[in-house]
Amino acid sequence: MQLDNFLNPASIAVLGASPDEHKLRGRLSKLIVKNGYRGDLYFINPSHKEIHGRRCFPDIGSVPGPVDLAIIVVPASQVVAALEQCAAKGVNNALIMTSGFAEEGGEQAKAQERIAEIARNSGIRVCGPNAEGFHNEVHNISATFSPAVDLDRSKLFTATSRRVGIIAQSGGIGFALYHRGLDLGLSFSRIVTVGNESDLTAADFLHHMVDDRKTHVILLFLETVRSPEAFIAALAKAALTSKPIVVVKVGRSAAGGRATASHTASMAGWDAAYDTIFAKYGVIVADDLDRALAIVAALGTCPLPRGKRVAVLTVSGGGGALAADALTSAGLDLPELSPKTQQLIRAQIPSYGAPQNPVDVTGQATRTEAPLKIIELLDEGDEVDIIVVVTTMANETLTPVKVAPLKELLARQNKPVLFFTYTVASDFGIREMAKAGVVTFTSLSEVATAVAAMVSYARFVPPGAIGLPVELPAAVMAELTNLTGIVPEHRAKMILEDCGIAMLPRRLVTSEVDLLAAANAVGYPVAVKIQSAEIPHKTDAGGVRLSVADLDALKVAFHAVVRSASKYTATAKLDGVLVERMASAGIEMIVGVVRDDIFGPILTVGAGGVTTELYRDVSRRVAPVTKNEAVDMLRELKYFPLLAGFRGSAKADITALAKLISQISMVAVSLKGSIAEIECNPVIVHPCGKGCSVVDAVMAASPA
Amino acid sequence: MQLDNFLNPASIAVLGASPDEHKLRGRLSKLIVKNGYRGDLYFINPSHKEIHGRRCFPDIGSVPGPVDLAIIVVPASQVVAALEQCAAKGVNNALIMTSGFAEEGGEQAKAQERIAEIARNSGIRVCGPNAEGFHNEVHNISATFSPAVDLDRSKLFTATSRRVGIIAQSGGIGFALYHRGLDLGLSFSRIVTVGNESDLTAADFLHHMVDDRKTHVILLFLETVRSPEAFIAALAKAALTSKPIVVVKVGRSAAGGRATASHTASMAGWDAAYDTIFAKYGVIVADDLDRALAIVAALGTCPLPRGKRVAVLTVSGGGGALAADALTSAGLDLPELSPKTQQLIRAQIPSYGAPQNPVDVTGQATRTEAPLKIIELLDEGDEVDIIVVVTTMANETLTPVKVAPLKELLARQNKPVLFFTYTVASDFGIREMAKAGVVTFTSLSEVATAVAAMVSYARFVPPGAIGLPVELPAAVMAELTNLTGIVPEHRAKMILEDCGIAMLPRRLVTSEVDLLAAANAVGYPVAVKIQSAEIPHKTDAGGVRLSVADLDALKVAFHAVVRSASKYTATAKLDGVLVERMASAGIEMIVGVVRDDIFGPILTVGAGGVTTELYRDVSRRVAPVTKNEAVDMLRELKYFPLLAGFRGSAKADITALAKLISQISMVAVSLKGSIAEIECNPVIVHPCGKGCSVVDAVMAASPA
Repeated sequence: MQLDNFLNPASIAVLGASPDEHKLRGRLSKLIVKNGYRGDLYFINPSHKEIHGRRCFPDIGSVPGPVDLAIIVVPASQVVAALEQCAAKGVNNALIMTSGFAEEGGEQAKAQERIAEIARNSGIRVCGPNAEGFHNEVHNISATFSPAVDLDRSKLFTATSRRVGIIAQSGGIGFALYHRGLDLGLSFSRIVTVGNESDLTAADFLHHMVDDRKTHVILLFLETVRSPEAFIAALAKAALTSKPIVVVKVGRSAAGGRATASHTASMAGWDAAYDTIFAKYGVIVADDLDRALAIVAALGTCPLPRGKRVAVLTVSGGGGALAADALTSAGLDLPELSPKTQQLIRAQIPSYGAPQNPVDVTGQATRTEAPLKIIELLDEGDEVDIIVVVTTMANETLTPVKVAPLKELLARQNKPVLFFTYTVASDFGIREMAKAGVVTFTSLSEVATAVAAMVSYARFVPPGAIGLPVELPAAVMAELTNLTGIVPEHRAKMILEDCGIAMLPRRLVTSEVDLLAAANAVGYPVAVKIQSAEIPHKTDAGGVRLSVADLDALKVAFHAVVRSASKYTATAKLDGVLVERMASAGIEMIVGVVRDDIFGPILTVGAGGVTTELYRDVSRRVAPVTKNEAVDMLRELKYFPLLAGFRGSAKADITALAKLISQISMVAVSLKGSIAEIECNPVIVHPCGKGCSVVDAVMAASPA
Repeated sequence: MQLDNFLNPASIAVLGASPDEHKLRGRLSKLIVKNGYRGDLYFINPSHKEIHGRRCFPDIGSVPGPVDLAIIVVPASQVVAALEQCAAKGVNNALIMTSGFAEEGGEQAKAQERIAEIARNSGIRVCGPNAEGFHNEVHNISATFSPAVDLDRSKLFTATSRRVGIIAQSGGIGFALYHRGLDLGLSFSRIVTVGNESDLTAADFLHHMVDDRKTHVILLFLETVRSPEAFIAALAKAALTSKPIVVVKVGRSAAGGRATASHTASMAGWDAAYDTIFAKYGVIVADDLDRALAIVAALGTCPLPRGKRVAVLTVSGGGGALAADALTSAGLDLPELSPKTQQLIRAQIPSYGAPQNPVDVTGQATRTEAPLKIIELLDEGDEVDIIVVVTTMANETLTPVKVAPLKELLARQNKPVLFFTYTVASDFGIREMAKAGVVTFTSLSEVATAVAAMVSYARFVPPGAIGLPVELPAAVMAELTNLTGIVPEHRAKMILEDCGIAMLPRRLVTSEVDLLAAANAVGYPVAVKIQSAEIPHKTDAGGVRLSVADLDALKVAFHAVVRSASKYTATAKLDGVLVERMASAGIEMIVGVVRDDIFGPILTVGAGGVTTELYRDVSRRVAPVTKNEAVDMLRELKYFPLLAGFRGSAKADITALAKLISQISMVAVSLKGSIAEIECNPVIVHPCGKGCSVVDAVMAASPA
């Protein structure tokens, strides 16, 4: 398996090893030994003869055997030389922990380029520099100085045998996730922190973990993606093999700020592409360390739910109400239980309890058989898909339910059961419940997040095969390669038409004498629109006249838009005036595509006019999409009821709109090298069976 | 001070005391003694001579001295008799813990009514039944069986001397908040759980805590409000005296579901009134126990910030990025620091650190002087208002910064400083940092929530005096008392006009012969609208014709709307047809008022048409509001840019709209006894200086 000899090396050399545990490299040296590494270990440091009772070598060249992994912790100025020596010796992998490279800029960034070059030329795979290393919990290999792995392992406890693999672009956060996860009783496979990714990137380790049978759930902490194709391939593999990935992606607050030609682009927060990619491959997005761990904990301990109906079982009325609010606001349902089930529950609880849902068994029922009997009852029936137990685990000597029968019950259980304590959980309580395979949750918003994530992951269907990108006519391709800057409406519409997308009848007119023929060809009423690459916002320039009904009016309109445009920007080069058939009435939509620097063309659909901009009500997908996916996109809009016939208005031609969206997405893929933005705005969607009309369109060529 | 002899009684009698600590009443008896109650304590139980070494009395009548507080824990069937005996003896207060009253319904609910009656008639104040009691931490009085107060107090630690008072409508959650708060190092004044509120309600205890000098921050857990006037008076007092109140309100997920006449009412989730009341009095709303405690912890340890600019100081780049995202998405600003400040910071940190903001001091700077020096630098300058420190507190023997100088620094500090650890905090770390007055935060979303809450609380201005409700003419008042059901447009507009609100010229016509005179009085073009209390949705019934331009067309329209309406509901009683001048163009808005059963008239403003319903983009206030408050409401709408002249369109007459909103709110207050709903929909707002027009209006009378 890829990177096996990196993460599970038969031999390790530590360049820069030290006996001084107050130094990071000393702590690293100690931790490899302390945590039980069983392969060949070579400490390398010309200043020492022995470290931790082991022979110390003066340089990598003097190591007798082969080396799978060289850990480099020498000062920054010596790193390149050390790596060259490793490459010369034929070392398979290097992990460079030393800081002060690309993150410092200048000469040091160049040194990092040199590192990448050595990797490319020699074949040695390099993780880092500036990496905090990794910990392989399956094979007890700690290649890191992180204090998080310096543990009294006899004090650890685990609630589950399913293991979590962590990949992090931050050493501190990667090992903090591990540290926090141990506290919940999670099991781990590997924790990998990737540093500056001069050679090996997060995507490489992601491939490893998707393939690794000991890793059941993957937790990613991402700042950026440095090898998007490999990254997407790994996500696709995980989606097909149903291995869940949970991601915390930072950098959402960074300003976007590049100039754009279309509304679509100006609305695309820079993280829109990430969210779109994650949605496509069923990656679960968490916005917080605790929520990420809560999701991982639920996936690690529970079967996937079959639906989104939750029963809450509580020992406190207030706690039940809190849980109901948290779960409902996360989009989950709390159905009232059937009269028959309520009657069966009534028999188990005091008269002042409540059997509906939340089921309030009251404080009196703690430690009785009631909670377990009710859980079993709800598991056997088909009224709910998930059970959330709200209880108190503050007690230092008693668990809220008996552990042995709980363990037995959960082993038979088909539905997820999650336990929340409203008091602070005692150490005793957490450890005892872990013996039954239970992770104790202490936050209801985390419970709700975890349940919602499980429900949505269970529903996820990996993307199937979709239509191929359009084969564009050679003439179009030739024209496209010459495009620069903003492509005005008439040219954009010609390109779209050449790609097989229907446009309204129209003529580009450059002189008054051509107006009659144009109008006859197009048919009244017409719209009259100035055309210039320098006037992307035609209306603002007074360059548009609508519903022009006869030749006299057309002549007036023609001169008016030319005059206004000339006044607006005296120097603008005018291509002419577009005379176009007015579209009939309907609902205005926007369909746009923006090419993301990392992930390629991202499709956006939203309502037309000001609504979309004011409410940011858009749906996004990675292009291309099928017609069915386009319909899904429309359904995600809050605006959708209007298309579907809100308050008795006519149902719009959703089929035609979906076809148009799919076509534009295919075109975007075909054009992706040359076009940065495409926007059809507005697209007017006519009533059912009447199709839709692209009223305006604009494109922007990719920057050279 | 109100309830002083309840919460700090000079003498306590326990009716139903027991030596058996496995029973709740035995645990209660023990905890009073164990936690150090120093007043006169009388155990009462005819079956015992002595409990916990104290003499036991057969009944309350045989107690020698006066009794401030009787705690009643006898079986439900004996509670009323016991309370009567207490009243007969002249006991000041009773706390009834026994369960099985209103929550059980039937005969038991009647027993609770009897309890309330005894309180009213005798003057004894009663808390409960079904109350888990209270704990007074200032005077060491535990009147509860909650295990949360059964603590080894030598192990407690506190980060702050400012005390938190808790009032909860759930015993379990009230004491869980205390239990969790102790774990954070918070100090407390009293924890009161109010049970079924047969006599004393949460509002009574709220008044006590607002007045209590030992309570600095109040934390409420609410399910409902049983005495709204007293509750609002207490909120108003807290607002004026700047005592912060944080509330967790449950029940948001409960279905609303009553039939409504207006869109305003159908959009009002049942919790809208609560949110509106809380906003009015600056009450901080939290949706989760941990977030509530985080806010309380920040308010208890930090000064209020002067603005919303945050500096993040981090030892981990990834942690800094996480913090930046969490804070930014909570609406806070992270300004880049000035070149001069960055230069000063550069001098303190390694070359691979970052001085912008987040300030990455790197892991190397832990335990150096750098973090403290940078905090001091940021405190002295005027570039930020709040400092968030992202660090690791996993270490069992070292704190991330030295405690003594930190304590000194924070004592001088003018700005809030919050500490977050991305690893699990060690017990050592939490306790040491508490010595410097620091609460350790372990969740960044809680840090962001707490900072945002402080910023918003610091900005809050208590509501000032506003205009008096309108004095309505006697004729209107007489008419109003006879209203039932839905009030159709023509009558609703007459009432509003009588209240001094300008309406469009209009005439109610019942026969074709009156059309000419009506049209002449009104002026063309006109709208023609059917009028019937049984047809609230006139358009759906085909009962509206717009832009009618002459008499012939008017006659056609008149007959058409009558015919349509008759076809729509053959039996509907028609009041006539309203002929009204068409309003000129503008932006459509909705202004509505719904009377909340608990809090009275709540005003709602939103965009007209489908936008408001699809996007739930509304602003709400308790009526009445001033014109300035009305402008604030408009500014809160995402739709506001459209009124303010979005994309070069004309600015709307916001002044006229604000006046109308204020007027309608005043009218709603005047009408509150008789009118359940008022809705003007749409109101068309014309360009600046051209006013606004109430195009349609409807009212619904209060249910009899």
